[in-house]
Amino acid sequence: MSDLRAAKEAARAVGLLPDGARRGLLRAVAAALRAEAPALLEANAADLAALPGDSAFRDRLLLTPARVEAMAAGAEAVAALPDNLWRTLEDRTLPNGLRLRRVRVPLGVVACIYEARPNVTVDVACLCLRTGNAAVLKGGKEAARTNAALGGLLARALRAAGLPEAAVTLLPPTHEAAEALMAAEGLVDVLIPRGSARLIRAVREKARVPVIETGAGVCHVYVHEDADLALAARVVDNAKTRRVSVCNALDCLLVHRALAGRLGEIVAPCRAKGVGIHAEPEDWGREWLSMDLSVRVVDGLDAALAHIARFGSGHSEAIVTRSPEAAERFRREVDAACVYVNTPTSFTDGGEFGLGAEVGISTQKLHARGPMGLDALTTYKWLIDSDGALRP
Amino acid sequence: MSDLRAAKEAARAVGLLPDGARRGLLRAVAAALRAEAPALLEANAADLAALPGDSAFRDRLLLTPARVEAMAAGAEAVAALPDNLWRTLEDRTLPNGLRLRRVRVPLGVVACIYEARPNVTVDVACLCLRTGNAAVLKGGKEAARTNAALGGLLARALRAAGLPEAAVTLLPPTHEAAEALMAAEGLVDVLIPRGSARLIRAVREKARVPVIETGAGVCHVYVHEDADLALAARVVDNAKTRRVSVCNALDCLLVHRALAGRLGEIVAPCRAKGVGIHAEPEDWGREWLSMDLSVRVVDGLDAALAHIARFGSGHSEAIVTRSPEAAERFRREVDAACVYVNTPTSFTDGGEFGLGAEVGISTQKLHARGPMGLDALTTYKWLIDSDGALRP
Repeated sequence: MSDLRAAKEAARAVGLLPDGARRGLLRAVAAALRAEAPALLEANAADLAALPGDSAFRDRLLLTPARVEAMAAGAEAVAALPDNLWRTLEDRTLPNGLRLRRVRVPLGVVACIYEARPNVTVDVACLCLRTGNAAVLKGGKEAARTNAALGGLLARALRAAGLPEAAVTLLPPTHEAAEALMAAEGLVDVLIPRGSARLIRAVREKARVPVIETGAGVCHVYVHEDADLALAARVVDNAKTRRVSVCNALDCLLVHRALAGRLGEIVAPCRAKGVGIHAEPEDWGREWLSMDLSVRVVDGLDAALAHIARFGSGHSEAIVTRSPEAAERFRREVDAACVYVNTPTSFTDGGEFGLGAEVGISTQKLHARGPMGLDALTTYKWLIDSDGALRP
Repeated sequence: MSDLRAAKEAARAVGLLPDGARRGLLRAVAAALRAEAPALLEANAADLAALPGDSAFRDRLLLTPARVEAMAAGAEAVAALPDNLWRTLEDRTLPNGLRLRRVRVPLGVVACIYEARPNVTVDVACLCLRTGNAAVLKGGKEAARTNAALGGLLARALRAAGLPEAAVTLLPPTHEAAEALMAAEGLVDVLIPRGSARLIRAVREKARVPVIETGAGVCHVYVHEDADLALAARVVDNAKTRRVSVCNALDCLLVHRALAGRLGEIVAPCRAKGVGIHAEPEDWGREWLSMDLSVRVVDGLDAALAHIARFGSGHSEAIVTRSPEAAERFRREVDAACVYVNTPTSFTDGGEFGLGAEVGISTQKLHARGPMGLDALTTYKWLIDSDGALRP
């Protein structure tokens, strides 16, 4: 808890930094990542050596020179984004003379519990510092040595900028640290779990601090009767096979009954890559994260909308159609963070959306929805001025 | 729970209504309130007759012809506000050809647990319907007959508009109904507790659905050394005595040490009205809700900011000063929903802020902060279109 009190103090210091100082800090982090790449790769090699040979974490944990460079470039990209702090969202003078402004301010302390991927450490730290927040990070035990090396690098960058190291606090990768974080009412402004559905559920059930849930994505593509089938096949293939382990990957293909006989064409590119096709109702609502795809033939747009309302997770949903009316109904009626027309769900990503990076992909409606970049890390306050107006 | 499933279904119908239909519905509610005023007052009289003679709820529960007219006028005011649904928050075309839009959409099912005030029933129902949401309302048992009468009126207005009555669902005023609501994961998009600190704490601790906390307001006025003392006395008086039972009422006056000898002048108008002055440290952080006021002499702006950071509740804070620099530091450094300069905290209110009405005053940062009007009842979704762009 003393770590978290220090983070709260540090948040105040970071929140008052001018734009240039926050940008400069991120550029210094980028330079340090490049300069210290050999030490980072060495720490990462030690983490990898300690993994069981068959661990599914291996690819997520792995750092390469290209991945370190990508982290550095990411830090620079976030530094280059326009500042969003103290930006005026509303500015009105009321009839009674009160001037009322709503301005964007940092959240304060942003905490994240995540798993093996080391880039999350740098991505979240940079987004938080850019937006005047302190970051509290609890990574997985598999990445302990890599994260310790990254934490040292971030601490040195903060110290060199005259800032408290607690502005980026790395907690030990223990259950006790996670429990303390989830119970830290008044010290943590938001806690973002990033990782498996099991991790997210555990945080939702235990946390006493505000939580933004991320990730779990049961994604659908609906192919309407008038669709260009070649386009549908490409969209389905890209959504399913681009990367199967990510939350924006396609889980269930819905096909209009008029096209039932052409299903083979629509899934041909996928099947050629080895995707297994499933038609059992017990798989509806399942997030595969593998080379598997559910398929359901539906009576039309209404049935597709009803299926998505029941089985979707509010993440990313797509329609393939030539009809502007069907597209507009799909846009309006699907209740999800990202709604696609003739475009695969694989684009749901902060970088792809031009947000520079993301803290996670929110499947919640409170505050933030979809890829969360700079704005999602801020709140606002109302400012009221007058020359002594009194309320009657 | 079947009530809540019906509310979720109804939310879909209300969410797809055009602006004019939502406005018309609220105007019909206003007309019905006026036409049925005698029956409402009769139901209210029965509730009042059942109250113990010394109940503190009496004034909050009481309906008068003027208060019924205020509810009707409130419904019309919300009808007259510009529609915020489907409004575009962002619209960009990315270099890869994707068109990316972020548009405002309803939350879905907005639930509220509250106490004796019957106007909350109409205010929240109207704000929810205006924004395309279904409302689920759990009022206090003291107001059971009044709320039943209001619920009947709202149901008839919905039916006349061809909408499901479940679009405004009044739950019975029982603990069981509250427990079911707090556990309704997947059926309730946000739960807003409105009332005593005890009610809000109970909801925060038990709820499994997303919650926006409202209300608890430990409010300060800091009088800086250069303040106009006559203005300070008026601000303190209005903030403290305008209505002492409300969350925006002043709880603690902080005075610069240079003005310690003039404290009597600053509190003179309050004392003349019978406000009791308290200087015990154990009262710092106390929300009085009565004709009492804590006072502390502080060394200056830094000490005032530190006091507010430690004892404030993030609701409303004010400074009285002639110095633009002191005012700007106060605005930037105070972490609260509403930050006032030379203006009393009594203005923190949706109506005063031009929001038409409010669902509550949020002391949270996630999603909404301060008086919550139309925008606070909406979220957004991202819309993505292309002619078959694939993610590389």
